[in-house]
Amino acid sequence: MSEISEEEAARHREKMKKRKAVQDAEVAARTIEKGLLVVNTGPGKGKTTAAFGLMLRALGHGWKVGVVQFIKGHWATGERTAFERFSDLVEWHTMGEGFTWETQDKARDVAAAARAWERAVELMGRKDIRLIVLDELNIALRYDYLPLAEVVETLKARRPDLHVVVTGRNAKPELIAAADLVTEMIPVKHHFDAGVKAQAGIEF
Amino acid sequence: MSEISEEEAARHREKMKKRKAVQDAEVAARTIEKGLLVVNTGPGKGKTTAAFGLMLRALGHGWKVGVVQFIKGHWATGERTAFERFSDLVEWHTMGEGFTWETQDKARDVAAAARAWERAVELMGRKDIRLIVLDELNIALRYDYLPLAEVVETLKARRPDLHVVVTGRNAKPELIAAADLVTEMIPVKHHFDAGVKAQAGIEF
Repeated sequence: MSEISEEEAARHREKMKKRKAVQDAEVAARTIEKGLLVVNTGPGKGKTTAAFGLMLRALGHGWKVGVVQFIKGHWATGERTAFERFSDLVEWHTMGEGFTWETQDKARDVAAAARAWERAVELMGRKDIRLIVLDELNIALRYDYLPLAEVVETLKARRPDLHVVVTGRNAKPELIAAADLVTEMIPVKHHFDAGVKAQAGIEF
Repeated sequence: MSEISEEEAARHREKMKKRKAVQDAEVAARTIEKGLLVVNTGPGKGKTTAAFGLMLRALGHGWKVGVVQFIKGHWATGERTAFERFSDLVEWHTMGEGFTWETQDKARDVAAAARAWERAVELMGRKDIRLIVLDELNIALRYDYLPLAEVVETLKARRPDLHVVVTGRNAKPELIAAADLVTEMIPVKHHFDAGVKAQAGIEF
């Protein structure tokens, strides 16, 4: 990189001073502390991985964390194995039996979703758990495997300091309305379209 | 949930059988294995957390992983602490000195970015490392703290089985062109807008 002139350095300093003032004012205006309902949705990658990244952040603060996987049953082995190093802090429940096109059995899928939701409700009652990831809950809601109104009401009635992260495509508008933080992951470019297959360490 | 009739169960089975056939054909058509250049960009949350989630997946497979943080210096303590449990597998380099509006010193920022990039190039040369996260590299590129063409060429010339994840807003078109997988994180709803402040375990 080329040399920075004194003039440019001064201009940069002024600009960044102003930006810092704006930033500091914004930060000061935010005073509420509360458990968030976070929703990661959209057709792109990163919904579940971002939830796991957030879990990791929470674990770094020594929090206890719960995970309920609603749909994925068998794969997703990488993260599961990695979280074994946090067996003192993580409670992991894989309740789904794989994707619905794998089971081809609606009654079984509905029963699995109901069991997973029961487990989620149990975890929400646990005072020692500060963050819960409900992975692919959106899929179970989308296929009407669970009663939407009841699920949303239960999530809204969670204790004030509990953070809950819900992942999966096609988040229901009622869930989005109840949420504090909603992010949509949009695919701009995908290696599957270029014939690259699902690989260990990346997709599972 | 109400009882499922035999007819509905059969219809569901047929539909899912067809979906599975489509899915299996798609999977079979993807035959290429290669190290991916992954870019997480966009104004929403989840760019860095998704990269850390992916790291975790890789770590679960016993891979060695490298991280270079280009911008964040002091905070982001949660994930850093959590990854200490993987000190046998993770090499973590925090090279940035905080956001640019914190330092207010362009020459210092440029020097920090150059040092971080040097470290990234070193890690790319390490045969034992299979995944590298270049956190907030996009910010350094956006502010022209690093030579874009050289960075993109070096990333393209990485060894064929090395995965690299680049995060940060405003990814340069040249980087997107070189990438295999690009996701844009779009904010749908943000708790900061409702006056909720940055909280431990969530933002840092």
